[in-house]
Amino acid sequence: MRLTSFLVFILGAHSAIAQPQRLTDYVNPLIGTHKMGHTFPGATVPFGAVQLSPETDTLPYEVNGKYNKDVYKYCAGYQYTDKTIVGFAHTHFSGTGHSDLGDFLIMPTVGKLQLNPGTADRPKSGYRSPFSHNEETARPDYYRVRLSRYNILAELTATTRVGVHQYTFPKTDSAHIILDAVYGIYNYPDKNVWTFMRVENDTLVTGYRQTNGWGRTRTVYFAMTFSRPFKDYGFQNGSKKQVYRGFWRKFDETHNFPEIAGTQIKAWFDFNTRAGDQIKIKFAISPVSTANALQNLQTEAPGWNFKQIKQAGQELWERELSKAAITADDNTLRNYYTAMYHSFINPTVYMDVNGEYRGLDQNTHKAEGFTNYTTFSLWDTYRAQHPLLNILQPTRNSHMVASMLAHYNQSAHKMLPVWSNSANENWCMIGYHSVSVLADAVVKDIPGIDRAAALDACVATARHKSYDGLGYYRTLGYVPEDKNGASVSKTLEYAYDDWCIARMAAKLNRQDIYNEFMLRSLNFRNVFDPSSGFMRPRLSNDSFKKPFDEMNTDEPGYIEGNAWNYSLYVPHAPDELIQLMGGKRRFIAHLDSLFTMQLPDSFFAKTEDISRDGIIGNYVHGNEPSHHIAYLYNEAGAPHKTQRQVRDIMKKMYHPTPDGLGGNDDCGQMSAWYIFSALGFYPVAPGSDQYWLGSPSVATATLHLENGKTFTITARNQGDKNVYVQKATLNGRELDRTYIRHQEITDGGALVFYMTDKE
Amino acid sequence: MRLTSFLVFILGAHSAIAQPQRLTDYVNPLIGTHKMGHTFPGATVPFGAVQLSPETDTLPYEVNGKYNKDVYKYCAGYQYTDKTIVGFAHTHFSGTGHSDLGDFLIMPTVGKLQLNPGTADRPKSGYRSPFSHNEETARPDYYRVRLSRYNILAELTATTRVGVHQYTFPKTDSAHIILDAVYGIYNYPDKNVWTFMRVENDTLVTGYRQTNGWGRTRTVYFAMTFSRPFKDYGFQNGSKKQVYRGFWRKFDETHNFPEIAGTQIKAWFDFNTRAGDQIKIKFAISPVSTANALQNLQTEAPGWNFKQIKQAGQELWERELSKAAITADDNTLRNYYTAMYHSFINPTVYMDVNGEYRGLDQNTHKAEGFTNYTTFSLWDTYRAQHPLLNILQPTRNSHMVASMLAHYNQSAHKMLPVWSNSANENWCMIGYHSVSVLADAVVKDIPGIDRAAALDACVATARHKSYDGLGYYRTLGYVPEDKNGASVSKTLEYAYDDWCIARMAAKLNRQDIYNEFMLRSLNFRNVFDPSSGFMRPRLSNDSFKKPFDEMNTDEPGYIEGNAWNYSLYVPHAPDELIQLMGGKRRFIAHLDSLFTMQLPDSFFAKTEDISRDGIIGNYVHGNEPSHHIAYLYNEAGAPHKTQRQVRDIMKKMYHPTPDGLGGNDDCGQMSAWYIFSALGFYPVAPGSDQYWLGSPSVATATLHLENGKTFTITARNQGDKNVYVQKATLNGRELDRTYIRHQEITDGGALVFYMTDKE
Repeated sequence: MRLTSFLVFILGAHSAIAQPQRLTDYVNPLIGTHKMGHTFPGATVPFGAVQLSPETDTLPYEVNGKYNKDVYKYCAGYQYTDKTIVGFAHTHFSGTGHSDLGDFLIMPTVGKLQLNPGTADRPKSGYRSPFSHNEETARPDYYRVRLSRYNILAELTATTRVGVHQYTFPKTDSAHIILDAVYGIYNYPDKNVWTFMRVENDTLVTGYRQTNGWGRTRTVYFAMTFSRPFKDYGFQNGSKKQVYRGFWRKFDETHNFPEIAGTQIKAWFDFNTRAGDQIKIKFAISPVSTANALQNLQTEAPGWNFKQIKQAGQELWERELSKAAITADDNTLRNYYTAMYHSFINPTVYMDVNGEYRGLDQNTHKAEGFTNYTTFSLWDTYRAQHPLLNILQPTRNSHMVASMLAHYNQSAHKMLPVWSNSANENWCMIGYHSVSVLADAVVKDIPGIDRAAALDACVATARHKSYDGLGYYRTLGYVPEDKNGASVSKTLEYAYDDWCIARMAAKLNRQDIYNEFMLRSLNFRNVFDPSSGFMRPRLSNDSFKKPFDEMNTDEPGYIEGNAWNYSLYVPHAPDELIQLMGGKRRFIAHLDSLFTMQLPDSFFAKTEDISRDGIIGNYVHGNEPSHHIAYLYNEAGAPHKTQRQVRDIMKKMYHPTPDGLGGNDDCGQMSAWYIFSALGFYPVAPGSDQYWLGSPSVATATLHLENGKTFTITARNQGDKNVYVQKATLNGRELDRTYIRHQEITDGGALVFYMTDKE
Repeated sequence: MRLTSFLVFILGAHSAIAQPQRLTDYVNPLIGTHKMGHTFPGATVPFGAVQLSPETDTLPYEVNGKYNKDVYKYCAGYQYTDKTIVGFAHTHFSGTGHSDLGDFLIMPTVGKLQLNPGTADRPKSGYRSPFSHNEETARPDYYRVRLSRYNILAELTATTRVGVHQYTFPKTDSAHIILDAVYGIYNYPDKNVWTFMRVENDTLVTGYRQTNGWGRTRTVYFAMTFSRPFKDYGFQNGSKKQVYRGFWRKFDETHNFPEIAGTQIKAWFDFNTRAGDQIKIKFAISPVSTANALQNLQTEAPGWNFKQIKQAGQELWERELSKAAITADDNTLRNYYTAMYHSFINPTVYMDVNGEYRGLDQNTHKAEGFTNYTTFSLWDTYRAQHPLLNILQPTRNSHMVASMLAHYNQSAHKMLPVWSNSANENWCMIGYHSVSVLADAVVKDIPGIDRAAALDACVATARHKSYDGLGYYRTLGYVPEDKNGASVSKTLEYAYDDWCIARMAAKLNRQDIYNEFMLRSLNFRNVFDPSSGFMRPRLSNDSFKKPFDEMNTDEPGYIEGNAWNYSLYVPHAPDELIQLMGGKRRFIAHLDSLFTMQLPDSFFAKTEDISRDGIIGNYVHGNEPSHHIAYLYNEAGAPHKTQRQVRDIMKKMYHPTPDGLGGNDDCGQMSAWYIFSALGFYPVAPGSDQYWLGSPSVATATLHLENGKTFTITARNQGDKNVYVQKATLNGRELDRTYIRHQEITDGGALVFYMTDKE
C-alpha cells in the first residue's frame, strides 16, 4: 500500500470530495451515538468543562412508579435513531454506563410560545422539532442541524467553559429562546434541588442549578449573554408553592420580573427577527459562582465571532490529534482519530479561569499550580486512558493526579476518588483504582507529581476499614461473598491495586510499604479454585460458594464479567496466573475457548451495557475487565494469538459509523484500548513500565512527545491479512521480548513491526 | 424621689436581694415571650449573627393541608406558657410578625436514642424534655435551664457568629447530642431544600442547610466542635430516596459514615459521662462556607472557657446599654433596658470575620470598609429604631446604610431593601422605607455615608415602574384601590418616603431631585376625602371607593391600621394635615376621639398581630403606623395632650413581664419607640432633624455619644402623676418650641424637663 493513498479519502459522511485533510476531519462525533456507545455528537474542546450537544428526547424516569429502562439509552442525551431534537444542553458525559448532567437546555423556536418539550410521536405537542441527519453535521467542537419545524439553523461550538450557540432565524415577530432548567439527564422526580435565575439586563442572565443525581450535591452556575437585547422575557415556575408568598403578590413574577427561584424553572426570551438574522448566545458555566461564570465568559469568549471561536476550538483538537498522527487505511483513520477524540473528552476541567473550583467538601478552593479536573471514571480509565495520557499528555495527567490528591485531601472518608463527579464521589464500581493511576505516573517518572503525598494517599485509601469489604480482605485475604457481593471481582482488583502501591513504594524506597502491599497483591490466589480452574466466590468459612456457574454474567461474586473473563484478571502476575491455571498449554487453550465458544441468546440478554456486537465468543470487550486478556497470550508464549486476536477485536468492535462502538465508551477507555492496540502495544498492568506488544493496525505512527522527542511506529508490509508480527525492531535492533518499556518511548526512537500473514 | 433609690431593686425575677447592679441585670429577655411579643429568651450579643435560644414546640405547619394558625405563636421559637423544650437553635428573629430561621437545633439527651421531638402532651414520645421557669434563667447573652427529664443542665452563650453550649450531664454511658437539621421555624413541607453534613474528625462537624422560607434562597453554613471526642455517631436521612444509589450500598450510611446530604437530615453523637461531666459545643455559622464558619469559630471562640465567653458577651451588652444610662423607677429601668436590649438585636451581622458575605445575587462578596448587616424590617424600623441608632450608634448605622447600598447594587430589581433576610428580599410590607433610613442618616450628617450613591439608589428605587402600584402613583398621584390594594397606606407612605428623598436632595444641593420628590410628597392630598374627613381609597376613575367603613381594620385600602389611624399618617406635613382635617381644634378632637372611643369586641378579633393590651381606644400601638400619633398634639398646639398620652402608652403597653409587650416587637421598633419616649422626645418624621418633645419617664438620662460628647436629660420633679412638662430648658435656656434638633444632641448639652401634674 502506498503511503499517498492514505491522504486521499472521503470527506464527511455524505460527500465524496477527495482532497488532503486535517486530522480533525477524520473525527466523526456521531460514532457511538447509536446503540450502547453513549457518546454525544455535540461541541466540546479537549477535556472541556462544556459539552454542548443536542438532546433527542425527554423520557420520564419513572412510569407508574417504576424505572423506565428506555431512559438508559439517553446517558449522553442523544440517540441516533430519534427523529426530533428537544434542544441543546451544556454538559454531557462521554460514554458512561450510568449518567447525570444535561444542564441548561436551550431551544430556539418560532411562533406560539410553548414551554413543554412535547413527545416524540407528537412533536407539536411541545417545543421540539423534527430534524434529519441529512441536515446535520458533527465535527470536533462544531455541531450543526436544521430544526425543520422552525426553519432555524442551529450551530454550536464551545471553549473550555463557554458554550456558544448561533441560531439563524426566519423572519418573524415571535422568535423565542427557551432556557429549560427542568430538563436533565436521568431526570427523576426531585432530582432538581434548586434553581436560581436573574435577568441582570436585557442581554445577560445568570443563575445556578443544584441537582441530586449521580452527583448527590452538585451545582452548576451559569452566565448567559445574548448577541442582541431581548424585547421581552418571562419565567415559568413549576415548583411546589412557597409558603408565605404574601408580599410577592406585589409582582407578576411570570413576565419581565428579573428574578426567580425554585425547583422547576424555565425561562423564555423574545425577539423580532428578519430572515437570516442570527441570535447568538454565549453560555458560560462555573462550579463556584455566577460571578466566576461571567469571568469565564469574558475571558474565554470576549467577542461574537462564532467562526473564530469554532476555529480556535478545532485548532485545539488538531493539536491534540497531531500528538500521535498515523497513516492507515480509511476506516482505521476514522476509528483511530475518533477514538483519540473520545479519549480526550473526559476527565473534564473543573475549575474557573481564576483557579477556583468547588471541592468535595463543598467549599471553594483555589488550585495552586495545577488545573483541577473531575469526571474520573477510574474503574474504566485506569486501564488504558490514563496510561495513554502519560505518553501523550504527561503534564495534563500530572494535573489529574493533583486533582485526585486534592479530592483525597477534601474527602471526609480520607479516600482517593473512586468515581469523581463534579465535587461529588458517586462510588461507582469497585476497587480503588486511583492508586493505579498514581502508581503508573510515579513509576513512569511523570514530572510534577507530589510522590510522597501520592503514596500516603494510596496507603490511606487501601487501609480504609469500612470500604466495600476491605476490612474482610485485610483480615481474611479475600472478600467473602457471604459478607460482601462481587467478592471475586473485588479481591482480584484489590490485589492488582495493592501491587500498584507496592510498585510505587519500591520506586520511593519505602520497603515497609512495599512489603505490606506486595503481600496483599498475592491475595488473588485466595479466590482461585483449583477444582474448577476458575477464580470463584469464597465464603467467610473458607469454603467456595455453591452452586457455581462460570458462564453466568449475573453470577454472585462478579460484576460486569463472568468467571471466564474475571478469572483472567491478574494483570500484575500473569505468570503465576498461568501456573495456577495449569501451565501455558492449558492457559492458551482456556483463552482460545474464551474467544471461540458459542453462547446461547440468554447470555446476551443478561450482559450489561453492551450490545451483541461487543462480544466475541465469551470474550466481552464491551465491558472493561477483559481489556487486557487478548494480550495474555504473549506471556503464555503465543504472541501470534495476541496479534491475531487484537486485530480481530479492532475489526469487529470498532466501526466508523454511529453504531460503531460495541459498548459504552466509558469516558474514553474503549477508545484508548483502540489507540494503544492500533499502535501495536498495550499497558497490560499500569503501574508497570511495560507495554505488551500486539499487532498494529496503522501503517505508521509518529508520537510527538512533550519532552520534544519523537517516537515512530512503522508496520512494514501492513495489510488486512498481515496481522502477524514476524519480528520487531527498536531503533534498528531486533526485540527479543514481547514488550517495550515506557522510557524507550520517552527517549524517542523507532519501533518497526515486520508484518506477515503467517503465524 | 431620691436618686439612690434607683440603685436598689429586685434582682432577677425570683430573688429579692437588693444591691447595686450592672445595667445588664435590668434586662429580662423573657419580656415579650408570652403572647404576641415574638421575642426570644436565648443568648445573643448586640446585633449578633447567632441567636441561640430554646424552642418550645415543633407544630406542624399544616394540618390536613391547611395552615395551622398556632404556628404563628412560634415566630421566635419560644412560648412562655409551654411546658417542654425540644432543643436549642442558633438563629431567631426578634419580634417579627412572620418568621423563618431556627437553624440547627441541638438537644442533649440521656438513655435510649430518640430522633423525633415528640409531642408536648406526650414528651416521652420523643426527645423533648419538660422544664420549669423556676429552673430557668435568661440574661443578656446567657440562658440556662434544667432539662428535668434528663437531669441535664443546659447553658447557652454566644459570640457574634458562634453559639456556645455547655451541657452538664449525669453519669451515663448513653449521653447523646442530637443535631436536628429538620427542625425549623415556620417549617412547612419542602421548606428544607438541602442539607449537607460531614464529620471531619471526632470533634468537628461541618455542613450547611438551604431553606426556601421567608428567605426564598437562604443558606446557613456551620462548623461545630465538641469539647471532647464522641465515641460514636450517626445520621438519619428522612429524605426521599435518591435514585441510582447503586454503589452507595457499599456503606452503612447510618452509622459512623462521615458524610450525608438530603432534605431531612438529623445527626447524633454519643458519649459516656460521669456525673457532672460537661460536654461543650461551639457552633459557628457563616453565610458563605463551612471554611468561613470554621474560621469564625477559631477567631471568635478559640478556647473552651464558657464563663469567659459569656462574660465577654455580657460586657458587650453592658457597653451598649451604658450609651444611654438612666435613673428611673424600677419598672421603668426594667422596661427601658430590656427595650434597649431588644432594639440592639436586629439588624444582624451578615458577614464572616474575613469580611466575606453572601450577596443578594447569591455570590460571595467582600465588605470593604463596613460590616454587612441583614434582617432589615424596614417598614417597622425606619420609624424609631434607625433614628435611635443615629444617636447612639452612628457608625453602626452607617454600616447598615452601606449594607443597604450593597443590597441595591446586587439587586436584580435595582431597588433598595424592603425587608432584607439573609441575602434575600422578602418584600414584606409596603413602601420603600430604606429611603427614610438613608435620608435620616444624610440629613443628620452621619459620617461615612456615600451620599451621592445613597441619593441615586433612593431615586432609582422611587422611580421603579412595576413596584407595587408605583406606576399608578407616579401618573395619577395616588395608588388606585381598584388596581392595587392597601392603596391609602401605600399612597401615604410613598408620599412620606418621597419627602425623605427631597430632604436628602436638598442637603446635597440637587434641586432637580428636590423638586421632583417634594412634589410627589404632596400626594397624600390626593387620597384625602373632605366629605368624610378621612384618608380614603380612591379608584382609577378618580372617585372615592364605596362603601367606606373608617373603623374596619380589614377595610380595603389599608394595611395594619384602619382609616382612623392611617389618616394621621402624614408625618412630614402635619401642619397641612391639620388644615385638611379642619384646623387645630377639630384635629385635636379627632385625636381625642381616637384615644378614647370604645370599640366592640369584633374589632379586636380582626386586628392583626396585637393583643387587646396593644390598643388604647382605637389607637393601635401594637402596629406601627400609629407610632407618631401621640406626638401630633404638639403641632396642634396641645403639647400637654402629647405628654399625657405618651406616658399613658408607656404605662399601658410596656410591662417588665413575659407578657409585657402588647404586640410584636418588630425587630426593635416597639422598643425603640419606648426608649425615645422614655427619654422625652421622638423622631416623628425621620429625614427631618427634629425630635418632638413628649414627657420623659426617666428621672435622668446620660447619652454618651460616639463623638465623645455627652447629652444629659433630667426630669425635675419626676413622678407617676407629674406627666406634664411645665417648661424645658436646653443648656439652661428655656425652649420656646416643642422639639429639639439632632445637632443639639450631638453637640452635647443638657436638656431639663420641669415636670408637674398640672396640664
